[in-house]
Amino acid sequence: MFLDKIKHIKAFILDVDGVLTDGTVLVTETGEQLRRFNIKDGYALQLAVKRGYYVVAVSGGRSKGIELRLKGLGIKEVYLGLDSKIETCRIFLQSKGLEPGHALYMGDDIPDLPALQLAGLKVCPADAAEEIKSVCDYISPKKGGEGCVRDIIEKVLKVRGDWYDESPSAHDGTSG
Amino acid sequence: MFLDKIKHIKAFILDVDGVLTDGTVLVTETGEQLRRFNIKDGYALQLAVKRGYYVVAVSGGRSKGIELRLKGLGIKEVYLGLDSKIETCRIFLQSKGLEPGHALYMGDDIPDLPALQLAGLKVCPADAAEEIKSVCDYISPKKGGEGCVRDIIEKVLKVRGDWYDESPSAHDGTSG
Amino acid sequence: MFLDKIKHIKAFILDVDGVLTDGTVLVTETGEQLRRFNIKDGYALQLAVKRGYYVVAVSGGRSKGIELRLKGLGIKEVYLGLDSKIETCRIFLQSKGLEPGHALYMGDDIPDLPALQLAGLKVCPADAAEEIKSVCDYISPKKGGEGCVRDIIEKVLKVRGDWYDESPSAHDGTSG
Amino acid sequence: MFLDKIKHIKAFILDVDGVLTDGTVLVTETGEQLRRFNIKDGYALQLAVKRGYYVVAVSGGRSKGIELRLKGLGIKEVYLGLDSKIETCRIFLQSKGLEPGHALYMGDDIPDLPALQLAGLKVCPADAAEEIKSVCDYISPKKGGEGCVRDIIEKVLKVRGDWYDESPSAHDGTSG
Repeated sequence: MFLDKIKHIKAFILDVDGVLTDGTVLVTETGEQLRRFNIKDGYALQLAVKRGYYVVAVSGGRSKGIELRLKGLGIKEVYLGLDSKIETCRIFLQSKGLEPGHALYMGDDIPDLPALQLAGLKVCPADAAEEIKSVCDYISPKKGGEGCVRDIIEKVLKVRGDWYDESPSAHDGTSG
Repeated sequence: MFLDKIKHIKAFILDVDGVLTDGTVLVTETGEQLRRFNIKDGYALQLAVKRGYYVVAVSGGRSKGIELRLKGLGIKEVYLGLDSKIETCRIFLQSKGLEPGHALYMGDDIPDLPALQLAGLKVCPADAAEEIKSVCDYISPKKGGEGCVRDIIEKVLKVRGDWYDESPSAHDGTSG
Repeated sequence: MFLDKIKHIKAFILDVDGVLTDGTVLVTETGEQLRRFNIKDGYALQLAVKRGYYVVAVSGGRSKGIELRLKGLGIKEVYLGLDSKIETCRIFLQSKGLEPGHALYMGDDIPDLPALQLAGLKVCPADAAEEIKSVCDYISPKKGGEGCVRDIIEKVLKVRGDWYDESPSAHDGTSG
Repeated sequence: MFLDKIKHIKAFILDVDGVLTDGTVLVTETGEQLRRFNIKDGYALQLAVKRGYYVVAVSGGRSKGIELRLKGLGIKEVYLGLDSKIETCRIFLQSKGLEPGHALYMGDDIPDLPALQLAGLKVCPADAAEEIKSVCDYISPKKGGEGCVRDIIEKVLKVRGDWYDESPSAHDGTSG
């Protein structure tokens, strides 16, 4: 069932905090918030983009840092400051002519529940909230920010024969 | 006993360092101190405020970053730079006409001991000091900054029927 | 033996990186290095100072942030940028008229070996280098930056009847 | 076999993210990326340089912070922003007249695979990608940024009789 669903995935829709990050924010005295991303996730994200998959990031947070990090990895669809993630996801899928079965959604907490229902393949990190785990097709053994995104992208790309890269780039999008 | 006490809770009084944060400070060369907050805690804090609970943060530290993070989550009562937390708690409870049985206090270290005695429900994170653990009604399985606040708010709101949110907001107060 | 040695301790001499911090530095693009300190350590350090113990920090690193953090806790003796820690320790002990038996040294790595030999009581965090562990009287169950300093100060102050504080201050030296 | 290979090592070629760091980047609101280095690694790196070993850092990332941290430890060969690490390694070995058997390479992810093939001794941290682990001579019990570099340098220097330092410097290159 899980493997069968994987075969049809063309789009990765990813929550940011707790999925692409470790679910913490480091707060400075001026209220700036720093987030922690994973470099191995970054490699997989870049490869997915290179292979022609849609990669979409959705977040209720509104942070220039998130945008800069993700755009640096080649991710074009970065939607921040959302009140309702499901609306954004629905519009995205429609605009690309994608069916629910083409979409994988990875989220970790209750605000992800509605949007998660929209995706054919529902996945979450090891440390997701119970409400999320109970509705997911697959729970990654990795936590948010510790490689859960790498794990699921690797699984999808391997099943679809897109994982092995003859000439892997060392660039990791960490800087210009 | 614990479940019975939970039923009467109207106010969450929370220590900052080691409860709302992971108990570390990251120090810059100019002496600025960065603290690490948890996004899943943030969701629960926002929901508690939305449901009409009092949420109060008390700290001996005096950091603009703490204030900005917590006010961004909708927490109005943020008391910093305190020498005596118990005095602040007593005044707060009185001003709102609250009994000890209405108040839950979560603390992790010896400076929390006096104020803890004031609350009807005494709770602490998994990594609290032994002196604190030994007087608490409930020790969360989660550590400070790793979801202990989410854990206790979720427990209280579930018992009182306030947890499930038909339209969870994706906003997490992480930015304007 | 360990308990017997504890009875005579009047001075805590502490390495910084890997003891008072978690042994990592977070490096910015301008080369600034941020260090991670533990708030529970901070409480114990303040109490030791208040009780009249000498508290001394020694480090090969030369960081304004270390100095600001430690002086904020009331530690007056902060020696940074040292090439030889043993020389600094010897001069300190002499100037205060202290015997080796009055001094506890906590270090975690090979550069601490010479100075460690000078102290009557040799202790280290759980994640110290093997060379250090093999010569220590006591290995804390806590790692550097995760409460090893709190652990040893608490042990000493308890044996000497200095631990319990009738009016613990909530101030943690984290800010002005 | 492993011990035999160790005897001939004259050069340590090290990946940065996930080897010299913990494989995360902390992203600020301006897109700046902070990396976490390990002080115990730092001690070993300085000792290796002092003993006359070549120490080389290679990375696809292009960060001034990496350069400042590593040059502060006395590492002269820091190659950043690489698209192909193998080319840089080949040129380096040739320019120094080194054979593959003289070189140890430590990497953690797929972009390291080609360069890894070039080295006589292939090693990786405990949390390396499976593709890397499967071709390595030695998998360190330590993770990236948690002492894997210290572990392998210590092993090599011990076998070659270069580890024990009669007068270890306390300087750790963390600041001027």
